[in-house]
Parts: sequence; C-alpha cells; structure tokens
Amino acid sequence: MSLVDLRSDLLAGPTPEMIEAMIATARVPSSYGPREDQHVRELEALTAQTLGTEDALFFPTCTMANQAALMVHCRPGDFIIAETESHVAEFEAASTAGVSNVAVLRVTGVHGHLSPVQLAEVLDRSEDEAMRVSMVSLENTHNRAGGTVMPEGWQQQIESACRARGIAIHLDGARLWNAAAYAKCDPLALVRGADSVAVSLNKALGAPLGAMLCGSKAFIRNASRVRQMLGGNWRPAGIVAAPALVALKTMQKRIVDDHANARHLGTALASEHPWLSIDFDSLQTNIVLVKLRTKQMNAARLTKRLSEMGVLVVAYGDQYVRLVIYSGIGQDQIGKVLTAFSEISRTLTADYLAGS
Amino acid sequence: MSLVDLRSDLLAGPTPEMIEAMIATARVPSSYGPREDQHVRELEALTAQTLGTEDALFFPTCTMANQAALMVHCRPGDFIIAETESHVAEFEAASTAGVSNVAVLRVTGVHGHLSPVQLAEVLDRSEDEAMRVSMVSLENTHNRAGGTVMPEGWQQQIESACRARGIAIHLDGARLWNAAAYAKCDPLALVRGADSVAVSLNKALGAPLGAMLCGSKAFIRNASRVRQMLGGNWRPAGIVAAPALVALKTMQKRIVDDHANARHLGTALASEHPWLSIDFDSLQTNIVLVKLRTKQMNAARLTKRLSEMGVLVVAYGDQYVRLVIYSGIGQDQIGKVLTAFSEISRTLTADYLAGS
Amino acid sequence: MSLVDLRSDLLAGPTPEMIEAMIATARVPSSYGPREDQHVRELEALTAQTLGTEDALFFPTCTMANQAALMVHCRPGDFIIAETESHVAEFEAASTAGVSNVAVLRVTGVHGHLSPVQLAEVLDRSEDEAMRVSMVSLENTHNRAGGTVMPEGWQQQIESACRARGIAIHLDGARLWNAAAYAKCDPLALVRGADSVAVSLNKALGAPLGAMLCGSKAFIRNASRVRQMLGGNWRPAGIVAAPALVALKTMQKRIVDDHANARHLGTALASEHPWLSIDFDSLQTNIVLVKLRTKQMNAARLTKRLSEMGVLVVAYGDQYVRLVIYSGIGQDQIGKVLTAFSEISRTLTADYLAGS
Amino acid sequence: MSLVDLRSDLLAGPTPEMIEAMIATARVPSSYGPREDQHVRELEALTAQTLGTEDALFFPTCTMANQAALMVHCRPGDFIIAETESHVAEFEAASTAGVSNVAVLRVTGVHGHLSPVQLAEVLDRSEDEAMRVSMVSLENTHNRAGGTVMPEGWQQQIESACRARGIAIHLDGARLWNAAAYAKCDPLALVRGADSVAVSLNKALGAPLGAMLCGSKAFIRNASRVRQMLGGNWRPAGIVAAPALVALKTMQKRIVDDHANARHLGTALASEHPWLSIDFDSLQTNIVLVKLRTKQMNAARLTKRLSEMGVLVVAYGDQYVRLVIYSGIGQDQIGKVLTAFSEISRTLTADYLAGS
Repeated sequence: MSLVDLRSDLLAGPTPEMIEAMIATARVPSSYGPREDQHVRELEALTAQTLGTEDALFFPTCTMANQAALMVHCRPGDFIIAETESHVAEFEAASTAGVSNVAVLRVTGVHGHLSPVQLAEVLDRSEDEAMRVSMVSLENTHNRAGGTVMPEGWQQQIESACRARGIAIHLDGARLWNAAAYAKCDPLALVRGADSVAVSLNKALGAPLGAMLCGSKAFIRNASRVRQMLGGNWRPAGIVAAPALVALKTMQKRIVDDHANARHLGTALASEHPWLSIDFDSLQTNIVLVKLRTKQMNAARLTKRLSEMGVLVVAYGDQYVRLVIYSGIGQDQIGKVLTAFSEISRTLTADYLAGS
Repeated sequence: MSLVDLRSDLLAGPTPEMIEAMIATARVPSSYGPREDQHVRELEALTAQTLGTEDALFFPTCTMANQAALMVHCRPGDFIIAETESHVAEFEAASTAGVSNVAVLRVTGVHGHLSPVQLAEVLDRSEDEAMRVSMVSLENTHNRAGGTVMPEGWQQQIESACRARGIAIHLDGARLWNAAAYAKCDPLALVRGADSVAVSLNKALGAPLGAMLCGSKAFIRNASRVRQMLGGNWRPAGIVAAPALVALKTMQKRIVDDHANARHLGTALASEHPWLSIDFDSLQTNIVLVKLRTKQMNAARLTKRLSEMGVLVVAYGDQYVRLVIYSGIGQDQIGKVLTAFSEISRTLTADYLAGS
Repeated sequence: MSLVDLRSDLLAGPTPEMIEAMIATARVPSSYGPREDQHVRELEALTAQTLGTEDALFFPTCTMANQAALMVHCRPGDFIIAETESHVAEFEAASTAGVSNVAVLRVTGVHGHLSPVQLAEVLDRSEDEAMRVSMVSLENTHNRAGGTVMPEGWQQQIESACRARGIAIHLDGARLWNAAAYAKCDPLALVRGADSVAVSLNKALGAPLGAMLCGSKAFIRNASRVRQMLGGNWRPAGIVAAPALVALKTMQKRIVDDHANARHLGTALASEHPWLSIDFDSLQTNIVLVKLRTKQMNAARLTKRLSEMGVLVVAYGDQYVRLVIYSGIGQDQIGKVLTAFSEISRTLTADYLAGS
Repeated sequence: MSLVDLRSDLLAGPTPEMIEAMIATARVPSSYGPREDQHVRELEALTAQTLGTEDALFFPTCTMANQAALMVHCRPGDFIIAETESHVAEFEAASTAGVSNVAVLRVTGVHGHLSPVQLAEVLDRSEDEAMRVSMVSLENTHNRAGGTVMPEGWQQQIESACRARGIAIHLDGARLWNAAAYAKCDPLALVRGADSVAVSLNKALGAPLGAMLCGSKAFIRNASRVRQMLGGNWRPAGIVAAPALVALKTMQKRIVDDHANARHLGTALASEHPWLSIDFDSLQTNIVLVKLRTKQMNAARLTKRLSEMGVLVVAYGDQYVRLVIYSGIGQDQIGKVLTAFSEISRTLTADYLAGS
C-alpha cells in the first residue's frame, strides 16, 4: 500500500535538481568553517537578500533558529509576548523556558494572530519595573490556527508600538513562503518591521534539511555564538546548503499549487461529509484543519482509521485533524484521501443506522 | 594552487559509496519522525551494537551530543569533573555553563587523561554537602593533548570509584574510532564502564554530518527530549543517516593508515627541522602537534606562512600548531606539507644568517 | 494622617514577645552555619513537626522557597502544572522560567483551585515522550482568587493521580495558616500528600522576615544546596529565626480574628455600596476582593482616591481592588476604611447626579 | 568552656546601638515595598554616597549581590575573567554556572589579584568571535589569599583595558572595608573604575544581616528585577536595614584594631612555633593564614585539636588553617588562641621525642 503522508510538509523531498547540487558538493573537498564554506555563504547571502535583511545564518532546525533569536533578544527572566498557540509558546515551551530561560505572556489572538489592539493592551498592563518585556513573537503563517496569514498592516502597527518601547520583534516564518504566496507579495514585504525572522528551508521549499535566521549583521554575529553554544554549528554544511540554495531559487513560485490543492481537498471534504466541518476563513494556505462534528468519531480514532487506509494525518486535540499539503501531494494523492474519507463516511452511516 | 587542509578531520569528505546511499535516500519519500525513519533507526541500532549500548540517538553535532549527556546526567549547579583542556571544559565552556548550567572541576591530567589516582583525590576533596559532583567526563582520544589514547585500565578504575558514589561517567568519544585503531581493539571495549558515549560520524569515519549519543534505553529517552529542547531534532534525517550508516560499516578499518601517515609526517618534520619538536609519546593517532622551539617563529606566523603555500593548519596558543590527518590526506599531500616546511626552514636559516 | 495599609499581610509587624526574642538573640554570640545555629535549628524542627514533615529549611522569602522546590523536583525544560493565576505561574513567572528553567502548563481552576478532574484531563493530554511533567503546584489559600481554601479531599485525589505517575506535588502554603484556620484543622492535615510545602513566617504569623520549606530529609538536603546556589544562605540567621519561633508558637490561634474582620469589612462594603460587589463564596479568609460595578470608577482610580484618604490597597487589573487583613488591622482601622469608601460613594453619587 | 570562634567574621554580632535601632524599627508599622521603606532607602542612599555610586540595593547575602551583578552584566554563555580562587570562581561556582549561566576564565593572580599585565594577555587570547568576555571580576580584599589588598593602581589600569573593549568590571568587596582600612583611604577610592560593587554589611561592619550592591541607577534598576527573580526581595526589610545603617555609620573606623590584632596573633604564632609559618606579605588585614610545615600535623587534625580546646578555625585544604579576626575578638580571645597553639606545640614535641 502506497502511503499518502499528510502529517507535515517536512516530508516534501528534494527535487532532482537539489539532489544534483548535493552530489556535486559531496564530490569536492569541504571547507572548515561554516561561514567560510562557499555554498553556505551563498545560501546565507541569497536568503538575506530575499528577505531584505543584512545577514542570515544557517541552522539545522527552525526551532533552534527561533530559540537563538530569543536568546539574542532576551535575558533570563525576561518576558516575550506570544500568541497562546504559537510554536514558540506551545510546541517549543520546554525550550523557551529551559534553554532560553524566558517567560511567555500568552495572548489568544484572532485566527492565530495577535491584533495591534490586543498587543497595545498587554503592553500597557505589563509596564511594571519588576517585569521586562523584551520581545514580541509573531508567527506567519500560524500553524495551529490552520496556516493562517497575518492580516495586512498589523505587523507595521505592532512595529510602531514595539519600537517606541525598545521591544524587539521576532517573526517565526517557518511557513513565511506560504504567507507570501497567499498575499501575492514578495516575502520581503512580510518581514518588514521585524528585527529577526526564522524561515524553514524544507516544508514549502523542500530542501532536505535546515532553516535560516535573518537579521542585522550585529544580530547574526550574536546568533552565531548562540548557535555554537546550542551545538548547532553543523560542519561541513555545504552538502545541505547546496540543495537548499536550489530550493530557495526554484520552489517559491509553485507554492500556489499547494494552496489550490488544499482548498480543493477542503472543499470536497466539507461538501461531502456532514460529520465534519472546515473553517474556510482559515483555510488560506497549505493546511486543512478538519473539525469533527459527530460524537461517533474523535480525532484519535479518525487518525487511526485513515492510517489503516494508508493516509497519515495528525490529531490536534480531540476534535481536529490536520492535513498538510506540499510538493509531493498532487491530484492522485488527494483522490486517495477523498476515497479514504468516503470509506469512513460509509462506516459511520452504517454504524449510525445500526444505532451505535 | 591546490590546498592541503590539515585544520581538522571534519574535512574528510564522503566516499562515493556514501554519496550513492545519500542519493538513493533522497529519491524516496521521507519519514516524519526521526525515530521512525528507517535509515536513522538502522544507524542508531548499528551504533548501539557497535558500542555495546542499549540504544543510540542521532545528533547534528558532537557538541550537542555531549551537552545532551550533561543535561541528562546533571542538574543546574552540579559539578562535573573534567580534564582542564578537554573539549567539554574548554571548547564547549560556554555551553557547559550557559546551556547545561553545570560547573566544572578542572583537573590537569597526564597527556590529557585524568588518572584514577587524581580522580580519587578530587572526589575526596569534593565531599561537601554544598556541592554535588554528578558526572565525570572523559575524552578518548584527547584532542588538545594531541590525539592521545587513555591508558589501558584507567577507565575501569575510574568506573569503580564513580559507581561507588553514584557519579555518572560520560565519554566524549568524538575520536573514539582512532583510540580503538591505536589500541587494536573493538571500540566497544573502550566504552565499557561509561554511562554514555558521544561519537562523531564525520572526522575519522568521513560521514557528511552527524554524531551519535549512546547509552541505556532510559538515558536515550531523556536525551531525545533534551535534543528536541536544544533544537536538534533535525528532520527528515534519512538523507544524512544513510551515508553515515555506510561510514560506520566501512571506514573503521582504514583509520590505521591515518595514524601511519601522521607518524610519518611527524617523524619527517622532527628529523629535518631543529627549530621544531614533536612529542612522540603523544603522537599516537591522527594528530601531529608541532612545537616551535625558535623565537624566530611563533604559531600565528607559521600558520600564515604555511597558508601562503597552500597548507592550512591551526595554531594552538603561541607555540604549537596542529596538523590533522584524515582519509583525504595521503602521500602526495604529506609531500606538499614537508616541502612547505622545508621552504620555511630555508627562510628561517636565511633570516638567522642575516642576523634577524 | 495615620495610614491604614491593607496592601499586604506582609505588613503585620512583630509582637513585643517576638522583639524580646530578637534582642535576646542579638546579645549572644552567633553561630557560623545556619544548620548549626540553635534558634534556626529549633525553628526548623518545630516547623517540620507542625507540618508533619521530616525536615524543614529557613529561607529569606517564600518566593525563594517555592523556586527551590521547583529546582529540586524538576530539571530544565520540565513542565509543572499550575493554576493560571497561582503565584508560581503568575507573580513568579520570571523566576520559574529564568531561574528554575521550567515551563508551566496553566489550568484555570475553580475559585483558584485545580480540581482533581481537571488535573486528570491535563495529565492525560500531556502523556507525550517529548514532554515531561515533573510537578504539580498547588496554592492554599489561593491569593489571586481572594484567599480561597482548597476544597476538602481534592489534595488527596490529586495525590493519587500524581503518585501513580511519579509526579511530585509542591504546595505553596504562603497562607497555609489561614487555610487551616478556615478549615478548623491542624495545618498538618492540609500538607498531607504533598512532597514539599512552603510557608511564610510573616503574613499571618507576623514574624519579621522569612519562610520555611519543608519535606523529606533528602529533599531538604537538596533544597539546602539550591538555597546556597541562589544566594539564600543568610547568616547568621538566629536573629530572625528567634522571633519567627515565637510567631510559630503564638500566632496561629489569632488568625480567626482576621477572618472575622475581613468578613465584617466585606459585608459592610457590599451592603452599603451598590457600585461594588463581593463574592462571598470566595471571601473565606483574610483577603477581601472588591469588584467594581460602575464605569464611573476603575481600580486605579479607586486605589488613588483611597490612598488620598490614608487607606492603601492594591489594584488587581482594572476591576478589582484587594484589601488584606492582618494582626495590626482591628475595628478602628476597619472603621476608617468604611468611612473612606462612604466618602467616595458620596462623590460618586454627586458625580452621577451631575451627569458625569 | 567559652568558645573563641575564628571561623568567620560573619560572627561579629551587632553592637548595642544596632540592637537599639532594630528594636525601634520593630515597634513601628512596616512599609510595603523595599524601595519605599525609610530605613532601607536611607541605607541604600548612604551606601551609594559612601562608595560614590549613583544607587545601591539591599540584599540578603553578598553571594546574591555578586550573582545579581553577573546576571546584569552578562548573558548565558558569556565569559567572565576571575582569579582562580576568587569567591565568584570557587565558592560560588555552582551559582555562577547554575544560576547566572556564565563561564569563567580563571587566571591565577599575584597574592590573589589579577595583575593588569595578566589581564591584558587573557584579553588578547580571548579575542574570538565564538566567545564573549563581558565582565572582569575583582575581589578586594581577596579572601583565599589571606585577606590581601589589591595593589594600588591596578584597578585603574584594568579599567582602561576593559573600558576600551566594552567589558564591565564588578568588584566583590565583601571585605572592601578592610581594604580601605589597610590602604588608609576612603572606600570610595577603591571602588573607582568598577561598574558595580558588592559589599557585606556584616563581617567587618558587624550588621546582623545583609549586603549591598552598588552601581549606576540603570544597573540597580536591573539588579532589582534580578533580586526579585532570585527570591531575594526580603520584605519588610526595615528591621535589618536599621541596624545596618548604624553599622555603616559607626564601624569603619575600628577595623584597624582587627588588623593590629591579626598581625599580633600571626607574629606570636610564627615566632613561637617552628612547625607553622605565616606569609607576612599577605597578612595585611584581618585574616591569618597559618601554613603547616610538619608532617605530624595536617589542617584537619589541627582544626579538630583546636576545637577540643574551644578554638574554632577553618581548614583550607590540607596545609592551611584560616583564623579570622573581627570586632568580638580582642586580647583575651587572642590569648586563649595562643595558649591553645602552645598546648598543641607541646604535644607535637612530645610526639616527636617519642619518635612518632
């Protein structure tokens, strides 16, 4: 049985062109320092240019890039303001407290995004000598809210509020490329106003491994020391930088296809199955959050049933499953997913008719 | 000018067979979790088997593997005992204090190795309620001492001292493969008595990237959580695990060649140039520490001169330069290095005759 | 103008008998170690006996006692479960993340207390290899909820859930003495089931300074090392231990008076002023939370107005002010507070009639 | 048997005048915030004035004051430069790594003090992007070296070296008062050039409890937040601040007596007992370091024997015992100490004659 694995866009594999770049790099002698390696330097330069920052640094994971930003912007015991379900506050909670030693002021946003009004309120409430807010963390797109894009103009308003108080802004842009594809703009436009931004090179771009942290030259110099401290100075990194460079150059334009596929999948599921629903306001990019509306089925059971039919998804709590679309998921795969759901639908109805 | 880069065995590139494995992996769909990926699982299983531990875990760097061991064995404010110039105490000092929050009792060992007698003395001195020693860190081979191998029997004696007091032993085995080649024994024999061991997959083995941390199943479960926390959960890692698996299977037996080459290089240098000396008791494996014996030349200047002739080395303080041999360095390269030194020798003599 | 300061029960001053004890101690030579000083040892022994634990340790503040408990029970990156507005999660957030390096799973309880059902749900949700919950933090009485007492039986049920999973329970009992007075039980009965408990010696007991952390002998041995590490090994501490010993012996029985006074104050305020309300279900001990029900007055303004009339209170957010009763606050003081509120009431009405 | 306790100057008890101040404070209502309390404010203002800094902050211990300075000047993973046996590097090692998360570059100084030349060398060696030295820690007088005073002019030279590189200087002045008495200068003169200074209020000054951290207004604002985070915000602190204020005003001038007594004790011991020696170059202030020159006696045994005769001292390693002079130690006490040593001398000789 061939699997359709919708658990994460991390699963997007490299293209033949990326593999070629990797091979070519593997065959020539390596360089010693990461900031000396030609491919790493090119990748860092192109990312910085693409995102409009002075400099950029190559990391093994986006989590480490985010945490390095926290460690550069904050000191132990400082507070960051972050959306309640943002990656930094939720999935990285152990790192944020245990590695960066930073406390989180959690604010539940609108479709995953802190509004400028909410932020202003929290900032007013937190003006206390015994407390220092040193950073606001944004996430675009917001994963847990279903890949939602930050409304236009918010980041600029948040920037002015923060600038006035000397508070840094970090943007967790693991899926920034998706946000740019949705907003039909240059990714650079979505970074404006942030002091630092982390982006994944796999996920939408499909590079084998790695993430980038971008910011001013001084910020990156500090981030480089933090990366070393966290054990993230992977060397020699040319072999992973070379395909990432290809990914950065070639993969952005095709992201709109993923969004179209996600919308198609969501629309088909919602129209065919009354026992589930989808919030189409939130279905903006490559993530389909399916909400279960029947007591006959919860997220754990649906995940298990789908898996038995070769479709892998992730349960979000009791009521939601997440389906993620990426470069390897086309019409064929979506067809299989729809078939699997229909199969389950039949059983549900049968169960229902049987009075269970 | 073709470079001979002796700065680090990190520069050993992958073999064609490793590149093949990487390509094959890149062409098939990835798996989501690192402990689910087939190549990663195989690599972890084979490493555990090779080193005689219950389990093993794949890390982006050996520094992170070492620090994860510290974080599992110790709590903030605990002490570890480590040789003064060991990697954990010296090169990783910022991590040991800043990430693992652990203090170091430094002991200057014999050719880089803490003797059981020294350890017993330190343990006696540190029996204080206000102080908790929770780990002893060993390093085999010891880099700064010139790649020296721990004398036979020491680890077992250290183990009994530690066992009696509930102190864990971590072995930084970044170059354990070299130690085994020198000792003509199974690497497993050198791990015995340690609660955890970190080994590099690049350096002597020449894998593109990565290191392994090995220990009991419970230890690795904790280390896995720590790896996530440090941002080291690189995914999907099959593409780097596959060539590492090849490295682990194929590269151990050729390490003796590196050692022969290092000895050849050292012997030639010492016999030809009276202005330098080499401690042959310490020249056991793949590292040649050259000591400068003339005021006409210090390490920084020698490093610069060699580099101008295409030979890259690392200065260790004022008086030493380090030359590291690895799979890419054969007779040709060594010939070039010897020529470069002879060239410098001539200038030195000329300078000397000129009275400078 | 003589002040009536209801901002905190920290303001309860020592009794003449405590002052006598302090003087007597100041006049004899000190002892060197804190665990050697006779008064400190007596205080620790009596506290342990009073709370039914094996041992106890003297701290400069209750915050440090709580954090030491976290550091003994948890490792960096571990999670604790705590009520959203508990002291450890809210007021100590910078310490919990920045010193103890621990993440908090926040659960909004019932009148400030996590119910056993809520806890079971959270524990089920958090069974994840990537996450370790190592401690549950309870707070009795709960300050932010208005000094509420944990319902009988809850702690025992929580204990069984935690025991089964190897999760420690810490009880922040800064105001445990008030809880015992309310429940008409021995404080020891409220500690049962907890692995550690922190209690204040000032507040209800009126000692000049200090708090105690109690637990098993092994726990206290670890806590003592952590206290040293945090810079909390205040010496020679006899001069503060001696009056605290008197406080512990003499002040518990009078706490019921504070509760009667608080209830009297709350009842009078609520019956006279329709623009405020008080939740009498929560007014159980010595804290009166006044809720403002008019747009004419917010917490900041009320605090300011009262202060101008010599009554000091603390604003909790926009809508609440907190009034705390302690040994120095009797009928006279309460009379002044009531007068001040009446004065404000008159202005409010006047403003209202004036149409503002 | 009345004890003569020379283990620490921490044992100096309060004078009657200090006790009076304490009583007076205990009898009036407390204030809520530490920076609001009148006695605390006076103490902080007078200390700042005495030491020539903008502001000062009251701490429970000098260890916490030192660590707060580290946390304000440094970030996790930063390095400080400190003398090998300084309090911050040695006695506080667990805090420096475990709480402040800072690594230490240890330099063995001259009689406990880092010379400007040594510092310049270390700074040159540490100019590495991967490493950030953010603070130099000085200690005056230096405890482990025997209460030695920093040579005149060194601090100014160190200041210029640090200023040029943006490195902060913290002065651990637990016994700064002794240094000033020795140098016959204003304490303020010894602080010049430091960005922060910690001083004990007990030890030479004899206040019951507490230490001060001094620096610029901005520094103290940050230190205040750190103090809260470490659980050091002891409240209400008037009762300990009031006697400390008396100590600061009245006790400095009598410190010369301690030094005369220490010198007298040392001279008598050295001249009478050939089995011990004293380095009179280091015997500058109130600490007498006795070195044992016979195999018949080691530090542990001497400490035990003296204790049996009612004289308490501290062993420093195997060969040294430390005797500390303070306000409670006068001619009578010194007489008893000399008698005890003579008694031991007799036994030693007897043992010797007996051939043991």
